[in-house]
Amino acid sequence: MEKVKILTVGAGAVGAYFTGRLAQAGAEVSVVVRSDYDAVKANGFEIRSEAGDFRFTPHGVYRSAGEYPDTADYVFLTSKFFPEIDEAPLLRGALKSPSTVLVLIQNGIGIEDRLAEAFPEHEILSSIAYIGATRIQPGVVRQKGASDLKFGRFGGGDSAAGRRLASLFASASGVNAEFVENIAWFRWSKLLWNLPYNPVSVLGGGLETSAMTDCGPLEALTRALMEEVRAVAAAEGVDLPDALVDKNVEFTRAFPPYKTSMLVDFEAGRRMEVEAILGNVCRIARKHGIDVPRMETCYTLLSALAHRKSSH
Amino acid sequence: MEKVKILTVGAGAVGAYFTGRLAQAGAEVSVVVRSDYDAVKANGFEIRSEAGDFRFTPHGVYRSAGEYPDTADYVFLTSKFFPEIDEAPLLRGALKSPSTVLVLIQNGIGIEDRLAEAFPEHEILSSIAYIGATRIQPGVVRQKGASDLKFGRFGGGDSAAGRRLASLFASASGVNAEFVENIAWFRWSKLLWNLPYNPVSVLGGGLETSAMTDCGPLEALTRALMEEVRAVAAAEGVDLPDALVDKNVEFTRAFPPYKTSMLVDFEAGRRMEVEAILGNVCRIARKHGIDVPRMETCYTLLSALAHRKSSH
Repeated sequence: MEKVKILTVGAGAVGAYFTGRLAQAGAEVSVVVRSDYDAVKANGFEIRSEAGDFRFTPHGVYRSAGEYPDTADYVFLTSKFFPEIDEAPLLRGALKSPSTVLVLIQNGIGIEDRLAEAFPEHEILSSIAYIGATRIQPGVVRQKGASDLKFGRFGGGDSAAGRRLASLFASASGVNAEFVENIAWFRWSKLLWNLPYNPVSVLGGGLETSAMTDCGPLEALTRALMEEVRAVAAAEGVDLPDALVDKNVEFTRAFPPYKTSMLVDFEAGRRMEVEAILGNVCRIARKHGIDVPRMETCYTLLSALAHRKSSH
Repeated sequence: MEKVKILTVGAGAVGAYFTGRLAQAGAEVSVVVRSDYDAVKANGFEIRSEAGDFRFTPHGVYRSAGEYPDTADYVFLTSKFFPEIDEAPLLRGALKSPSTVLVLIQNGIGIEDRLAEAFPEHEILSSIAYIGATRIQPGVVRQKGASDLKFGRFGGGDSAAGRRLASLFASASGVNAEFVENIAWFRWSKLLWNLPYNPVSVLGGGLETSAMTDCGPLEALTRALMEEVRAVAAAEGVDLPDALVDKNVEFTRAFPPYKTSMLVDFEAGRRMEVEAILGNVCRIARKHGIDVPRMETCYTLLSALAHRKSSH
């Protein structure tokens, strides 16, 4: 059987981990890297993982997708979503044949729309990662805790390419990956956690999860934000049962206190995913005429804070 | 005519300015000061005012109200309102006779309740200052811009003591003071400005007024907060006409950009008046069953931020 060919564009910690695992399982994985090009070109990736350390030596290392000489079966995109960064021109060189499937591993809502419009001939596998992976130096990635991946056809339904990728992941170690027919549900379900805890942790002055699950006003606020998410999801045809709210709170409370990824980004002076987590959802709410006052308040305040931070 | 006797308790910049002006006009003004006792005892107050510099040498300078040997006509309290600081024990020593009127110059809503309960025999004149006054060093106060004062009987209605104080102010220079029968209206009306702009300026990462009157999402948020204030005021029987919202925005936009007092406090590491400006209003809203989601969101976030700041 011919090897599955994968190109990982903008291979950060998450992309390097998942596609590195696929390389371990026999896929031919090449990468496009920007700032860490020299380190990765010279030594590949060193991956320190709770599921076993390994070295991931890509088949090819490129500075841009256009340099990729082959036709990939899957092009992975794992960079963060920022509205003014159009990934389409970066990807175009690697999407020469309609047989190439685009795999997006990104947080938030509404992150597929622009690429679906730019590449109407290509299937998109929308994916959500539940993983703790951090780039600790050029070419070195540390993975801790979960390394789960859910993916499914953007728009929903069955997908031969999705099932093929699932079997490839099944033969890989260190990843718990699943193909699902209703990826939108999982995306909204993850947002039910991300939308309240991320902004509140930042706006509240640097709150860990414990402070937001303390049965006080901060917990009440995060619960109310979850209810707003449920209302928007319902308008989009996605049913997030009421019980998920309690489940999120209890699940979060059961963990040792930790910082949300948005708070980690904020404290490190890195850009926060304000639009993928909040902005797009507020716009969907407006489109449906749904009142989301707490969400809008957090979105407005967080946008201002992000702007102030970046201009300092 | 016997001199009007005034005791100013906790004489900060605002108290020193207003009652210093009354001393200039012939009142016998004593002060209770804490941290600046030595400077004020030695030299009185030096007041640098746009309406004319002057020196205010108090009749008596005390460390506590109980040391005041006389019976005051008016006891002024101008400290900030914090819920866990009970001013009653501090004031009790100066409120020996029911003829002594308590004059409160404080921001916010619900600031009179506790003192009205502690001193049921005493009339309270609830007052709102529109003044820029800053203590720049011990015993030295700078006043810039407006120096207006509105006061009226707590609970509303006419007041001989209020009218007497108004005529005393009328004979003083550098103050535009007015006795009103509906001080609650003016208090809510001032809150219509304070409640949106103060928290948003802090939560948005240090915003000047210009950023909140830019016709964008921050202006929309502050306007929506004003509408929530209007709803709570209405439930309290205070009618704040719709047109006041536009007026506030236009008035604020017309000024050169400046920082709100809460932002100034926050940046200086001083305590913010979260309860007087937000917390008490949220509780009144809850009492009436009025939904104030944006106000509650700001209150919850700002309380957390204030707590984080103070514990760092």
